[in-house]
Amino acid sequence: MTGRVLTVTLNAALDVTYHVAAFTPGATHRVSRVDERAGGKGLNVARLLHALGTPVVATGLAGGACGARIRSLLADQEVPEAFVPIAAESRRTVVVAEPDTATGLWEPGPTVTADEWDAFLARFTDLVRDAEVAVLSGSLPSGVPADAYRVLVEVARRAGARTVLDTSGDPLRHGLDAGPDLVKPNAEELAGLTGHAPPGPAAAVETVRALDADAVVASFGPEGLLAVTGEGAWHAYLPHPVAGNPTGAGDACVAALTRGMIGRHAWPDRLTEAVALSAAAVRAPVAGSVDLADYRHLLPAVIVKEL
Amino acid sequence: MTGRVLTVTLNAALDVTYHVAAFTPGATHRVSRVDERAGGKGLNVARLLHALGTPVVATGLAGGACGARIRSLLADQEVPEAFVPIAAESRRTVVVAEPDTATGLWEPGPTVTADEWDAFLARFTDLVRDAEVAVLSGSLPSGVPADAYRVLVEVARRAGARTVLDTSGDPLRHGLDAGPDLVKPNAEELAGLTGHAPPGPAAAVETVRALDADAVVASFGPEGLLAVTGEGAWHAYLPHPVAGNPTGAGDACVAALTRGMIGRHAWPDRLTEAVALSAAAVRAPVAGSVDLADYRHLLPAVIVKEL
Repeated sequence: MTGRVLTVTLNAALDVTYHVAAFTPGATHRVSRVDERAGGKGLNVARLLHALGTPVVATGLAGGACGARIRSLLADQEVPEAFVPIAAESRRTVVVAEPDTATGLWEPGPTVTADEWDAFLARFTDLVRDAEVAVLSGSLPSGVPADAYRVLVEVARRAGARTVLDTSGDPLRHGLDAGPDLVKPNAEELAGLTGHAPPGPAAAVETVRALDADAVVASFGPEGLLAVTGEGAWHAYLPHPVAGNPTGAGDACVAALTRGMIGRHAWPDRLTEAVALSAAAVRAPVAGSVDLADYRHLLPAVIVKEL
Repeated sequence: MTGRVLTVTLNAALDVTYHVAAFTPGATHRVSRVDERAGGKGLNVARLLHALGTPVVATGLAGGACGARIRSLLADQEVPEAFVPIAAESRRTVVVAEPDTATGLWEPGPTVTADEWDAFLARFTDLVRDAEVAVLSGSLPSGVPADAYRVLVEVARRAGARTVLDTSGDPLRHGLDAGPDLVKPNAEELAGLTGHAPPGPAAAVETVRALDADAVVASFGPEGLLAVTGEGAWHAYLPHPVAGNPTGAGDACVAALTRGMIGRHAWPDRLTEAVALSAAAVRAPVAGSVDLADYRHLLPAVIVKEL
């Protein structure tokens, strides 16, 4: 199985949404509708790339009945996958959606054995040979070494593939040790790395430049993106913030930047695409999906300023 | 596969309990522990019979990743099962458990096709030939005919098996048309059948006698059981109600009555066992499980009065 992009989702999830009219703690509720999605940041990226026509293979770890359901949901959407099985059950996320409020319940997730991690490393080493870009997204399940993303960036580099890293905390810190081609922290993740809240996109250039990556695109929600690259630094944003659900906007940004990396687009174009795809994700009624017509409609509105 | 008892669970569930320290609508919660059980009233009966050493086979309908998980959880507990697969996902029930409160979320459940129902009827017809008693418990999923339990009681009778029916509403009404050997309504189900709340165990004899079943055991929670049979009528109860979780107490009652039916115990003995096993289920920390030592400890305390 080959794809120009290989996405990695080590802590894949079955995202379940329960629609209820009104939610009362202590009561019993009949759920009027259940929506299920294969979740985890890497799978959002894979789905978007697939929708945009970029050949992609989704790998990662998935186990038990939840893992089987995640894989069957990907198959329903025709997203090619090469997940490595684990014995433990993959996690579910449950969102109880009322008309105006959402309540989240995050399962703790599986524990991965050393043998399962070795099997994943072997599979990744094999798959990444056929990839131009490996996208490494999200948290690590228990049992996976904290420096997993450092190892994967190094394996990808030896195979001639570039890497995009989108994670937080220790996994991000360790991943940066290997110098990935692109990292995409958000403001909160930047604060976690540097110990202080970044002062906003245009003023955070020096903070971001200090990170050990070829290029950094930091996302500041409605304030847009700050890119610091070998070719220059830019601030890209929409003049009017869009309303909606920000879940999945970061993954849309990563998908657009990955396409820009493959197409060797000029940085201002990559950032325009990333801002527009993120905004379309915010406006989409279902978290993690995007209306491509809305994306194209938003492209001309994006402002890119060189810093 | 043979068992003296065949339990039927047409709307099997994956019962999931999320333990959280405090539950706040609108917030996101990390779940500290997840418990999973194969659920549905018939499966509670099957598990208890298995624990008590009565050979049992659990059948019913189960589908998708949830159905696979239900079957693997039964296999973990070594409960023999012969479920018929359906294409749709079996339902989950999610209970969010705080130290003092429980909030329930009931999925709507699958829709069963006509072919799947026919396949189940064929399987039941085959399995019930080896059973002494068929226990028919719980609600019907969408797509299963409302008179399903009437048909199953008739098929069981032709095969020489006796039947225990524990359900509510229309499925109970239709099931009674076939004259099952035993029905076990609770006070609410009796009210649903007769149109008025029963006045309490001792005063409800005439109401209960009007039901079309060889024997009726009506459960009144902490007020105990009322049995109206061809051999007499009895009220069985504990002098002091027990504290705990009443979920699964009705299934424990059915399990005990089924054992009494097989062993042809005298009715006062059957009722003593049913009251004690139900009370042990109420006192058990996990809904649907029973401490058999506690059950034996409770037996001598049960009072049985002939009416």
